Amino acid sequence: MTKDIETTAEQGGGAEFSAKDYHDPPPAPLIDLEELTKWSLYRAAIAEFIATLLFLYVTVLTVIGYKVQTDPVKNTKDPDCGGVGILGIAWAFGGMIFILVYCTAGISGGHINPAVTFGLFVGRKVSLIRALLYMVAQCLGAICGCGLVKAFQKTYYNSYGGGANELQDGFNKGTGLGAEIIGTFVLVYTVFSATDPKRSARDSHVPVLAPLPIGFAVFMVHLATIPITGTGINPARSFGAAVIYNQEKAWDDQWIFWVGPFIGAFVAAFYHQYILRAAAIKALGSFRSNA
Amino acid sequence: MTKDIETTAEQGGGAEFSAKDYHDPPPAPLIDLEELTKWSLYRAAIAEFIATLLFLYVTVLTVIGYKVQTDPVKNTKDPDCGGVGILGIAWAFGGMIFILVYCTAGISGGHINPAVTFGLFVGRKVSLIRALLYMVAQCLGAICGCGLVKAFQKTYYNSYGGGANELQDGFNKGTGLGAEIIGTFVLVYTVFSATDPKRSARDSHVPVLAPLPIGFAVFMVHLATIPITGTGINPARSFGAAVIYNQEKAWDDQWIFWVGPFIGAFVAAFYHQYILRAAAIKALGSFRSNA
Amino acid sequence: MTKDIETTAEQGGGAEFSAKDYHDPPPAPLIDLEELTKWSLYRAAIAEFIATLLFLYVTVLTVIGYKVQTDPVKNTKDPDCGGVGILGIAWAFGGMIFILVYCTAGISGGHINPAVTFGLFVGRKVSLIRALLYMVAQCLGAICGCGLVKAFQKTYYNSYGGGANELQDGFNKGTGLGAEIIGTFVLVYTVFSATDPKRSARDSHVPVLAPLPIGFAVFMVHLATIPITGTGINPARSFGAAVIYNQEKAWDDQWIFWVGPFIGAFVAAFYHQYILRAAAIKALGSFRSNA
Amino acid sequence: MTKDIETTAEQGGGAEFSAKDYHDPPPAPLIDLEELTKWSLYRAAIAEFIATLLFLYVTVLTVIGYKVQTDPVKNTKDPDCGGVGILGIAWAFGGMIFILVYCTAGISGGHINPAVTFGLFVGRKVSLIRALLYMVAQCLGAICGCGLVKAFQKTYYNSYGGGANELQDGFNKGTGLGAEIIGTFVLVYTVFSATDPKRSARDSHVPVLAPLPIGFAVFMVHLATIPITGTGINPARSFGAAVIYNQEKAWDDQWIFWVGPFIGAFVAAFYHQYILRAAAIKALGSFRSNA
Repeated sequence: MTKDIETTAEQGGGAEFSAKDYHDPPPAPLIDLEELTKWSLYRAAIAEFIATLLFLYVTVLTVIGYKVQTDPVKNTKDPDCGGVGILGIAWAFGGMIFILVYCTAGISGGHINPAVTFGLFVGRKVSLIRALLYMVAQCLGAICGCGLVKAFQKTYYNSYGGGANELQDGFNKGTGLGAEIIGTFVLVYTVFSATDPKRSARDSHVPVLAPLPIGFAVFMVHLATIPITGTGINPARSFGAAVIYNQEKAWDDQWIFWVGPFIGAFVAAFYHQYILRAAAIKALGSFRSNA
Repeated sequence: MTKDIETTAEQGGGAEFSAKDYHDPPPAPLIDLEELTKWSLYRAAIAEFIATLLFLYVTVLTVIGYKVQTDPVKNTKDPDCGGVGILGIAWAFGGMIFILVYCTAGISGGHINPAVTFGLFVGRKVSLIRALLYMVAQCLGAICGCGLVKAFQKTYYNSYGGGANELQDGFNKGTGLGAEIIGTFVLVYTVFSATDPKRSARDSHVPVLAPLPIGFAVFMVHLATIPITGTGINPARSFGAAVIYNQEKAWDDQWIFWVGPFIGAFVAAFYHQYILRAAAIKALGSFRSNA
Repeated sequence: MTKDIETTAEQGGGAEFSAKDYHDPPPAPLIDLEELTKWSLYRAAIAEFIATLLFLYVTVLTVIGYKVQTDPVKNTKDPDCGGVGILGIAWAFGGMIFILVYCTAGISGGHINPAVTFGLFVGRKVSLIRALLYMVAQCLGAICGCGLVKAFQKTYYNSYGGGANELQDGFNKGTGLGAEIIGTFVLVYTVFSATDPKRSARDSHVPVLAPLPIGFAVFMVHLATIPITGTGINPARSFGAAVIYNQEKAWDDQWIFWVGPFIGAFVAAFYHQYILRAAAIKALGSFRSNA
Repeated sequence: MTKDIETTAEQGGGAEFSAKDYHDPPPAPLIDLEELTKWSLYRAAIAEFIATLLFLYVTVLTVIGYKVQTDPVKNTKDPDCGGVGILGIAWAFGGMIFILVYCTAGISGGHINPAVTFGLFVGRKVSLIRALLYMVAQCLGAICGCGLVKAFQKTYYNSYGGGANELQDGFNKGTGLGAEIIGTFVLVYTVFSATDPKRSARDSHVPVLAPLPIGFAVFMVHLATIPITGTGINPARSFGAAVIYNQEKAWDDQWIFWVGPFIGAFVAAFYHQYILRAAAIKALGSFRSNA
C-alpha cells in the first residue's frame, strides 16, 4: 500500500489527487456459493442477530421507561420531567448504533439494519446471499429484543405503544414516506462516506473512527423525525416492534418503514457511487502503479 | 513527508519546534480558470448543495417538531417537557455539522457555510471562483432543505417561526451583530485550528478527527446564543429559512446574519494567520530541508 | 509486528483475513506468585481504588443533587426541570467511565468494575490474584466515594435514597436480574471488542479510542434500566452505595447486583471467546509466520 | 523515536513494559530568561487570553440565557422547560474546554485554567515565568469574556447572578472547598494522563485525542457540583465572573475557588508523578537504549 499521500492538497478546499493511492475492491459477486461453506459468514450472521437484539432491547426499554415516568396518572410526584426525554430516546438509538457498529464492524461489517445491508448490496459491497442472511438475522434479532422488553415491562409495554413505528396524527403517508427516505439517505450516505476505500487508504484508522459519525447520523435523524413517524430508518427495528406489539395501526403503516428506508438507501448508494466517486472512475486514465 | 517530529517538545507547555516539519501549501490563486474545467469542482459544489440541504432539513425539522410538542394548546397531555428542548436543538445543529463535515471533507473540504468558505478564502485556502460557487450551492441547498420542512410540516411551519433567525425581544441590533461575530469567530477559529497544515504534518489523522471539534463549536455557540438571535453563524442557513418563511421581520434582520458571520470569519482568519502563525513565518530563517 | 494488513478486505461486509496478522497473548496464569513482588500490581490496585472512588463520588453526587433540585417541597421556585434529569445522570455514569478508563487504561487496564474484572479473568486476560486484588480495591474505593458524598450532602443523602441500587416498584426479582445480566453483557461485550488483540494489531490506536465506546455502553444501559433497578452493572458501585446508605431494601436486593453482572460478564466473555473468535482458532491452520 | 512497542503486553489487565520506549523530557527550568525573548511565549499568552475569553463568554451567556428562559415571571408561556437545563450548562463548560484545548494545544498547551497551569508547573512541565504569564492572561481573558456577556445581556446579567461562583445555601465552606479540591483533582488527573509522555510514545496521536476526555472531565464535574458551588475548578473563571458581577457574596467565597483548585491540582500532580509514575523511575535500571 502506497503511503505517498499529498496531504497538503487535502487542506482547504477541493482535494485533488493526481493519482490513485488506493484500490477499489472488486464488486462483491451476486452469488458466491463458496461463501456458504465458510464459518465467518455464519459467525457474521450471529453477530448481526445479537447486535440487533441488543439494539432493540436497549432502545425500546428506554422508550417504555420514559413513557412510564412521564405518565401523569402513574407518576403523580413529578410527572413532567421524570424521564430521559425525547433527547434521551434519540441518544439511546444513536448511541447503541455507535457501540454496536464499533463492536461488530470487524466481524460482520456492523450493519444492524436491513436498509444499510441493502445499500451496501446495491453498492456491490456484499453478495446477495450475505445480504439476505443478514436481513433475516436482523429481523429475528429485532423480534427477540422487543420480546425481552415486553417480558420485562409487561405491565406497560402494550399501553405505551410498544416502541412501534406509526405515522403520527396530522401527517399523511407521503410525508412519512419522505421522512423515512431522507432519514435513511443521511444514514447510508454517512456509512458510505465512512467506509470509502479512497478514504481508508489515506487514513488507515478510519474503520475505527467510523462508528461515531454513523451513530450520530442515527441520533440526528431521530431528533428530527420522532414527531413524524417515531423514526424507523431501520426496517428490522420497525418489523420487530410490530411483531411483538401486533396492533393494526403498526401493521398498516409497516410498508412505509420498508419502502422508505430501501429507497433512501438506494439513492444514497447511487449518489455516492455515481456522483461523488465518478471522478475516481475518470481518474483511472492517470493511474499510477504503486509499489 | 518528513516524520522526525519532536514529540517530546509537544509535552507540557509551549511547543517549540526548532525546524519546520511541514509545508505550508502555496496560497490558492484568486482566479484559476483551469479549475473550471475540472469535474471535481462541480462535484464539490454538488456535495455542498446536498450537505446544506440535509443540514437545514434535519435542524429546522427538529426546531418545528420541538415547538409542536411543547405547545400547550396543541399538546394538552404533557406540554412542558415533550420535546427535545433547546439542548436537543443545539445538538441537532452541532451534530449535523459533525457528520456532514465528516462526509464531505474529502470531496469539497466540508464547508456547508458561506462564512467558513469566506474565512478560508481570506486565508487563501480556496480560490475566488470556488468560494463563489460554494456559496451559491450552499444557499440553494438551504432553500431546498427549508422547503422540504415546509412541505412536511405545512400545518405548523409558518405558525412556529419557520426556523428563521430573528433578533429576539429585548436585544438591540448591536448585540445581535456582536453575538454573530463572536459565534462565527469560535467556529472559524476551530476550523483553522483543525485544518492547520502544521498540525496535520505531525498528526496525519487530524483531517479525520477535525469534524468532531468543529461540530462541537457549532453546538456550543447554539447553547449560548439561541436566546439572542436564534443563532445564525451560517448565512446560508439564515437565508434559506428567510426565503421559505418569507416574513418581514426575518428579512429586516437578515443583514445581521450576513455581516456578522463574515466579520467573525475575517477576524478568525486574521487571528490564525497573522497572530498564531506569525512565528511560523519568522521560523523560515531556520528552515531545514526535508527529504 | 507485521504491517501487511489487507485493508481493502475490511471494506463493505465480511472482513476475511487470509492469515493472522496478530498474536493472541498467552492466557494469563491463574496464580502467578512472581506478580506479587512487582510494584506495578500494587500501583494498579491503587489506581483502581482511586478511579472507583472518583466514579462513585461524581455519579452519586449527581444523583443526590438532581433529587434535591427536583423536590417540589424543597424547591418551590421551579421544581420540575431544575435538575440535570435522568439523561444527566446517565451521562454522569457513562462519562465518568469514559474518562476513568482513559486515565487508568495504561496503569491497571481500566476496569473500575468487578464484573469487568471477572469477565477478563474468565477470558484469561488477568490472573486470579490480580482479579481478586482489583475487586477488593474497587469495593473499598466505592465505599469511600459514597462516604464522601454522604459527608458533603449529609442533609439529603439518606432522604434521597443514597444513590443505592434497589429494585423499583412494579418489577419482580427475575426482571431485575435479567436487566442486570443483559446490561452487563452489553458493557463487557464492548470491553472485549475494544481490547481484542486481533483488532489492535490492525489499528494500533484502538487502546486509546476504546474508552469512548465503553463509556457509551454504560451511558446506554443507564438510559434503559434506571427505571427498573437504578442500573447496577457494577457490583462495586452497588456495594459501596449499600454500605454507606445501609438500609434494609438495598441489602435485600444486593445479591441481584452481584449475581446479575457476573452472569452477564461470563456470557459476554464466552460469546466473544468461543463464538466470535472461534474462526480465529480455526484459522490457525493457515498461520503464516510474521517477521 | 523508537517504535518497538510491545502492543500485546497492553492487552487485558496490567500493562507491563520490560523497557522504556519513551523519553521523559527534562523538567522545565524554574526560570528561563531566554524564554522571555521568544515570540512563541507571548503568542501562547495571547492564545490563552483569547481562549479564556471565549470560554467565559460562551458559558456565562449560556447560564444567563437559561435563567431568563426558565424565569416564570419573564416567560409565562412555558417557563419550566424553555432553557437548556443544568445539563446544557454542564455541556457548555465541558464542550468549550474540549474545543479550546483542541485549538490551543499546539500553541500554548491549552491550559485555559490557572489550576491546570499550576498543576503542570508542580509537575515541572512549564517554567515559573510561563506559568505566571499564563495565569495573568487567563484572568484578563476571563474578565473580558464576562464583560462581553454583561454588555450583551445587561438587562439580566446582575439579576441572574452573573454566572459567578458562590457557595449554595445549605452547604458549609468545608464542603465547598472539598468539592472544588476533588473536582479539580479529576480534571488535572485527566490532563496528566492525557499528556503523559509514556503514553504519547506508544500512541503518537494522543495529543490530538486528549482534548475529548479533558472536556468530558469538566462536563462531569459540573454535573456533580453545580448544586454545591456552581462549580469553579478554574480560578480564572471564578475571578473573572466575580470582577464583573462584583457582589459581596461572590468576593467572600472567592478564596474557595482559588485554594480549592490549587490544592486539587497539587494533589493530582503528586499522585501522577509520585504514585503512578514511580515504577517508571524504578524501571530506569533496566533501561534499554533505543535506536
